[in-house]
Amino acid sequence: MRIDVLTLFPNMFEGPMTDSIIGKAAEKEIVTITTTNFREFADNKHKTVDDYPFGGGAGMLLKAQPIVDAIGNIETNYPETKKRIILMDPAGKKYDQALAEELAEEEHLVFICGHYEGYDERIKEFITDEISIGDFILTGGELSAMVIIDSVVRLLPETLGNTLSSQTDSFSTGLLEHPQYTRPRDFRGMEVPDVLVSGNHAKIEEWQEKESLRKTWQKRPDLLDALTLTKQQEAWLEEFKKAEKK
Amino acid sequence: MRIDVLTLFPNMFEGPMTDSIIGKAAEKEIVTITTTNFREFADNKHKTVDDYPFGGGAGMLLKAQPIVDAIGNIETNYPETKKRIILMDPAGKKYDQALAEELAEEEHLVFICGHYEGYDERIKEFITDEISIGDFILTGGELSAMVIIDSVVRLLPETLGNTLSSQTDSFSTGLLEHPQYTRPRDFRGMEVPDVLVSGNHAKIEEWQEKESLRKTWQKRPDLLDALTLTKQQEAWLEEFKKAEKK
Repeated sequence: MRIDVLTLFPNMFEGPMTDSIIGKAAEKEIVTITTTNFREFADNKHKTVDDYPFGGGAGMLLKAQPIVDAIGNIETNYPETKKRIILMDPAGKKYDQALAEELAEEEHLVFICGHYEGYDERIKEFITDEISIGDFILTGGELSAMVIIDSVVRLLPETLGNTLSSQTDSFSTGLLEHPQYTRPRDFRGMEVPDVLVSGNHAKIEEWQEKESLRKTWQKRPDLLDALTLTKQQEAWLEEFKKAEKK
Repeated sequence: MRIDVLTLFPNMFEGPMTDSIIGKAAEKEIVTITTTNFREFADNKHKTVDDYPFGGGAGMLLKAQPIVDAIGNIETNYPETKKRIILMDPAGKKYDQALAEELAEEEHLVFICGHYEGYDERIKEFITDEISIGDFILTGGELSAMVIIDSVVRLLPETLGNTLSSQTDSFSTGLLEHPQYTRPRDFRGMEVPDVLVSGNHAKIEEWQEKESLRKTWQKRPDLLDALTLTKQQEAWLEEFKKAEKK
């Protein structure tokens, strides 16, 4: 996969994209990530990328020209790749694991990271997607782009050593993951549930399924609406609800 | 504000927390951000921080001891600060602008960034908050912590040069921001709406309010449910709906 990032702060990508698992994926050539400062594309003498908004308002807006020409440059350099050109925007489509899986199938992702107060609206004529990672405001689109890159690259075959890992995560089964414990069995007086050290695999699996359902019901009941529950799961839910009433 | 981050990948924080607006806030001593590798606190000879899950399962879990002792060290060094000890977790409370504003009032934030397959559940006895930035899986909690730090620090007084900026953002008014335009008036055949260059401030303000409402209605109608609309806004909504039916 090829990833291009258009940003005014390419140095922000150094740590997150070179250290950790994404850096390793780049070393193994599973992904090639290039950051470009779109200020280089500004066609004015002072390399200005922002200007006042028409009609007034607080702060500065990113001009269309430098970003649009930086996109054009990528189109020229990689004419044959199928591209998703993604603008990070709080009004965009809400990012979730399904969208991560969709993007992981793509050949070439281009991220446009804003800064300052916003963009010239006309930039939107040159993109394919507007994405938001959540209902909060960041100083720029860089961290949002990194979040998407991280979640997409980890889904690429061979990125994670243990391929089972990405299949048993929270959300990929539709339920939150059950509580987990590792050694020591007694940590400062807090003990691991007996069943997990029983050696009875059927019982352990049942406990994990039940606790996964309980945690989802307690913390994210909205996730249950999207699922078709088994009879066993329905019975467990009844049990949780009864226990709560007591 | 003081921020401590417990992570196995402190280098990931270099770019995002030193470059850009957060770095400037740190230079101005508006915030002090310290990253600590909790591997230093592992009490075993090989500084191991992970182990196999009881009961089996894919991947490795973070052990409780190194993280709990790293938290203890912060408590010892800063006994008097009121702390929010935040575990980044996909099952946590969904992060949003209201929670950003809440955290911006705090004195001392401590972030615990996981990695690998998960945590020993008993770590949760030592924290105050579990937070998730969205329904997607990352390779670790580092980027989520950076997202929260960025969105919180930008709300601190004096971080943003233009204090108006953070008050007129999407979400802080409950509506998405209206489309914005900057020079040139004609960009490759696409023109700025006439009203914005009319000089009529009342008309411009009305256009901005109306387009803000239109964008929210088109892209995030769920946000409207939380608002009490004015009569004018109700009338505009009727107009949008009628136009759509034609």
